Amino acid sequence: MQRNSIKVSMAVVRRLPKYYRYLGDLIHNDVMRISSKELGKLMGLTASQIRQDLNCFGGFGQQGYGYNVIELQKEIGSILGLSKSYNCVIVGAGNLGQAIANYEGFKREGFILKAMFDVNPRLIGNTIRDIKILDILDLGEYVKSNDIQIGIICVPKEHSQSVADTLIENNVKAIWNFAPTDVSVPDNVVIENVAISESLYTLTYLMNEDSLNI
Amino acid sequence: MQRNSIKVSMAVVRRLPKYYRYLGDLIHNDVMRISSKELGKLMGLTASQIRQDLNCFGGFGQQGYGYNVIELQKEIGSILGLSKSYNCVIVGAGNLGQAIANYEGFKREGFILKAMFDVNPRLIGNTIRDIKILDILDLGEYVKSNDIQIGIICVPKEHSQSVADTLIENNVKAIWNFAPTDVSVPDNVVIENVAISESLYTLTYLMNEDSLNI
Repeated sequence: MQRNSIKVSMAVVRRLPKYYRYLGDLIHNDVMRISSKELGKLMGLTASQIRQDLNCFGGFGQQGYGYNVIELQKEIGSILGLSKSYNCVIVGAGNLGQAIANYEGFKREGFILKAMFDVNPRLIGNTIRDIKILDILDLGEYVKSNDIQIGIICVPKEHSQSVADTLIENNVKAIWNFAPTDVSVPDNVVIENVAISESLYTLTYLMNEDSLNI
Repeated sequence: MQRNSIKVSMAVVRRLPKYYRYLGDLIHNDVMRISSKELGKLMGLTASQIRQDLNCFGGFGQQGYGYNVIELQKEIGSILGLSKSYNCVIVGAGNLGQAIANYEGFKREGFILKAMFDVNPRLIGNTIRDIKILDILDLGEYVKSNDIQIGIICVPKEHSQSVADTLIENNVKAIWNFAPTDVSVPDNVVIENVAISESLYTLTYLMNEDSLNI
């Protein structure tokens, strides 16, 4: 596959997981081939936007044939880094941490949940999905000696930055943060701050849009 | 406040909750006034983008003074519909449903959680945050007679569309869907599909970006 040498915009990057998911659904429904027009209709994008997006990565379709669904999903998965595997820990084993541990998109080959951590003595020592909940005091040491690549933060927001700092000091290079506040990381660490309330407030905006005088 | 008559793009709309959150943090830290340059630095945007975004709603700043943080947050909150209140139900009272019930951005004045629903007899009858878990068989009837505006879906993906259908048949006009599949709704209903895995796959993309030959 030939790829362009242009830096791909974050807007396109953020659409790739959506392509990946929709293509997975198509495979599940035994659809083997799809045109950019049909795919666009499914995803609420124009055919031309689909072609533009995929052209950032060299383009995959054939004129008059469309896209081979399985190949395209595989290629996008590979671009997303989903053909590799990652050792992960979840910090915070409350409802949110447990929900993430059981979340479908995370329970796939490639994301290896090695341990969970909490401060709560009633949780420490328990197991979830066969994963031990360990004492948060042991987080740094564990992360350093178990080659953890992704740290998932599910603690209250006042502790999120210090948890992130401990992870980063011990060589974690990627943080998936669910605490409702952005955490800061150095340039060599990547972060996704998942602010769930932002989508709720978008919803209430949309509920009221018609009555806004704009 | 004077507003423009241009339809606001979804990209701007999706940044509004972020403004709202950052301004809340500033208020929390007793910052009363901020320039577009400083706000941009905090949020990772340019000063000109900040001014452009806020101009969609008529603009709030004064040349040489900057923005009044409290007023700006209040205005944005009002644009987001956060000055109103909403009756809500959560369908699915497992870890994810419970995590949402306890999530900070949702536990605020305005979002009134009236009930939770589940199929699991071991959960039905229990309370979370003083909220009763009811039998999912009673969902339609309850929603209709309690003026529910927002339905929050935290059930496994194979049940998400039928739950959405029940909510909509009984007059719910907004759906916040956490099941890892998009649900379809008619034009008069608004929906936010929160696909958590998309942000995970964005993270793995960013982890591998340097090694991608693009």
